[in-house]
Parts: sequence; C-alpha cells; structure tokens
Amino acid sequence: MTAFPGRLAEAVRRKGNPLCVGLDPRWDALPESLRKRYGSESLSAIAASIEEFCIRVLDLVADRVPVVKPQSAFFESCGPAGMNALQAVIRRARDLGLVVILDSKRGDIASTAEAYADAAYAGTPVAGRRHPVWAADAVTVNPYLGRDAVEPFLVRAREVGGGVFILVRTSNAGAAQFQDLECGDRKLYRHVAAAVAAWNAGTVGVCGLGDVGAVVGATRPTELAELRAEMPAVWFLVP
Amino acid sequence: MTAFPGRLAEAVRRKGNPLCVGLDPRWDALPESLRKRYGSESLSAIAASIEEFCIRVLDLVADRVPVVKPQSAFFESCGPAGMNALQAVIRRARDLGLVVILDSKRGDIASTAEAYADAAYAGTPVAGRRHPVWAADAVTVNPYLGRDAVEPFLVRAREVGGGVFILVRTSNAGAAQFQDLECGDRKLYRHVAAAVAAWNAGTVGVCGLGDVGAVVGATRPTELAELRAEMPAVWFLVP
Repeated sequence: MTAFPGRLAEAVRRKGNPLCVGLDPRWDALPESLRKRYGSESLSAIAASIEEFCIRVLDLVADRVPVVKPQSAFFESCGPAGMNALQAVIRRARDLGLVVILDSKRGDIASTAEAYADAAYAGTPVAGRRHPVWAADAVTVNPYLGRDAVEPFLVRAREVGGGVFILVRTSNAGAAQFQDLECGDRKLYRHVAAAVAAWNAGTVGVCGLGDVGAVVGATRPTELAELRAEMPAVWFLVP
Repeated sequence: MTAFPGRLAEAVRRKGNPLCVGLDPRWDALPESLRKRYGSESLSAIAASIEEFCIRVLDLVADRVPVVKPQSAFFESCGPAGMNALQAVIRRARDLGLVVILDSKRGDIASTAEAYADAAYAGTPVAGRRHPVWAADAVTVNPYLGRDAVEPFLVRAREVGGGVFILVRTSNAGAAQFQDLECGDRKLYRHVAAAVAAWNAGTVGVCGLGDVGAVVGATRPTELAELRAEMPAVWFLVP
C-alpha cells in the first residue's frame, strides 16, 4: 500500500496539474433535461438525478484532473437516497483512478470521531469485519475540538493510505470572526496551522509532503505565503 | 407555531426536569440478544438493530425526560441504512412528544450550510416543495467558520420553531488546545460565547430564553458560572 503523499503526488504528476474538481450538486443547477427526466416528486428521484450528473462530470474530468471533492451536504440533503448516491459517486471516482476528498467537515470527539473516521476510510468494524461506508481517500475535518477530534482521522487515514484535510483559514466572509482573533503573538488560524504542521510531521514521505492537508482560502496572497512558511510539508486545498 | 424557547420550556416543565438522553448506539454495546437476532452480516442488519435499540430506549424514557439527542456519527457509520434508522428514530421521538437535538456538529458556509440546515429542519426545497429529511427540533453546530456558517441554521430553525446549539467549550481532553487560547482579554471560547449571546438576543421569548443554545462542558464549575454570566438567555447543553 502506498501512503497518501506518494499516491497524491503520483496522481498530480500523471495528470500534469494539481486541480481538484468540486462536486456540489444542487438540483436547481442541474441541466433541465436531467431534471425533467427524473422529476422532483421524491428525494429518491432528486438523488438519482444528482448521481447521474456527478457521474457524467467524473467521466468528463477523469482524464484531466487528479482529484475530486464531493460536498456531503448536497447528498445528505436528499436523505438516505442521497447517501446512496454519494457512495455510487465515490465508487465511480475511485474506479476512474481519481483521488476523492470527501468534504464533510466533520469534527467530534473520542468514539464519535472514530465512528466518523471508520465510515470515511476503511469501513465500520463489526464483529471483526470491516463494512465499507464512504471509502474516500481523504476527508475534511474541523479543528475546533482540538487534537482528540483530529487524531482518530490521522490514525485511520494512515491505515489505508488516506489523508486528512484540516480547516485552517477558510475563504468565507465570516471566517475572520474567530479565525483572525489575535491569540498572543498571532491569529487563531496560525495556531491551527502550527498544530497541523505538527500533526503532519511524522507522516512526510519521499515527495516531501505528508498525510495531512490544510484548507486555506486564497483571499489574501500574503496569508497564503505565511501559511506555506508555517506548513512547508502540508498539502494545501485552496477553494 | 410556538417558538423553540416556549416549546422547550414547556417540555421541561411538563416532565419536571431538564434532562437530555443521548442516543449513541454502538453495535458493540447493544444487548447480546438484539445483536444475535439481527446478526452482523451487513450494515442494514446493524442499522436495524440500532434502530430497534433506540426506539426501545425512547419508549422507556419518553414519560420521564423532555429531550433526546441522537448522535449522527453512529447512524452514519451504518451508511444509507443507518440514515434510514436515524429518520425512524427521530420520527418516533417526535411522535412521543420528545424534543430532538440532532448531534451532528455541522459547520459549513453559504449554500452548503443552507443545505445542511434545510435537511435538519423543514426539509430540502425542490421545485417549490419541501421534502423532509431529518426533521429535528434542533441541531448542534460548530462555530469555527464564523457567522455565515451559523446564520442559515438560525434562520431555518426560526421558520419551524426549532433551535441551534453551538459548540462553545467542549468537555474533551483536547478542547483546551484552541478553545482556551488567550485572545486579547479572554479565551477563544469566551469570544464564541459572546457571539452566541448576540445571535440569541433577537430570539428571546417570554420564558427568558431564546432559540440558541450553547454546548458547554461542565468540567470546571467556575467556567460554567462565567459562561452563564456571559450568556444569561442561552440554553445550556451540558454533556
């Protein structure tokens, strides 16, 4: 099994670019022909139209980009049928050789974080057997709860050659409210960045990067440069 | 439609206590008879055993407590079948007159937060119609992304007489790593508490409390007293 940094670096090299295609399927934005064909009578119909749309996008982009990022909210908003669609979309993406980052921004503690991480990567362990759930290559994680919310993801990602992308500085208008608070000598997001660099340190592979990534908004280029200096061996996911 | 503070206050009054029963169903912890009956061959079997267990608990506690809190991670770890079980458990709880806080700790921005909030409360809007997804009374939300991650929940909760519980100071061992950072004159979680009090301010009902709650670990009683002073009109969810 190749570790995450090697896999992701190889995927980027093979495609000749580091692009990630986001899959944020909203029914209102689907092609009209697709909406008409499935109708809108039930969440199952909507989930089916979303699934077909995403799979068409995957088939179009698979030769061109190394990474895709399904946003779990839009699948969850179709209920259990949407979660079935999410499974199908991730399966197809991986069959096409794409690296899949599940954008679910999970964050919880202890056995709860373990349950999320089991679902994200190797599957839920029951009576000595793993039952696959999302089978993603990586997931996004919210750092607010601290290290015990992050570590189960790091451990379980490592087991399957997967990665963890941690929110550091997001790109939304309200991000500054807490992330830019001055905490001692630097802003909160710089403290998170330092923790991300430390979590990543033990996982750095021959390509010079590790299992851990950081979600960093590129709204201000100086911030991005500071963060790169703080986290030299960390993958950046820049929305 | 009665607003959330009135509904929750009435439920607490009727039961004579403010207790919340957590539903964190892990297969390993289910009664052996139940595990044997459903088996462990598939996530559907595991989800069915979890659903029966939770519904038995609901039937036992419904006369005694006002609030239940299903933890979405344990349902999600059974995949789409688990999400079906979560819907069934929430439906039963509400049929029994219990107030349901869905503990999913969601946090995302813009249209993504709206999708999570639609799913949590009134349902996903498609072609002018709402399709119910979780239909909870309240959900837990992570504040790290700031106001635009929280506001869609506040708006959509208000529409259905629902509530929003925001993580302020969690009880886990790693919580201090970021939440206790000194930001100017006070710790990060105190800044979050001030924002929670502000978000709540416009929603306070005749009972003196509002639509917004705070998740606060009771690990240090002095912290709890400080937080109560900071957020006098905010519901506290104390794990």
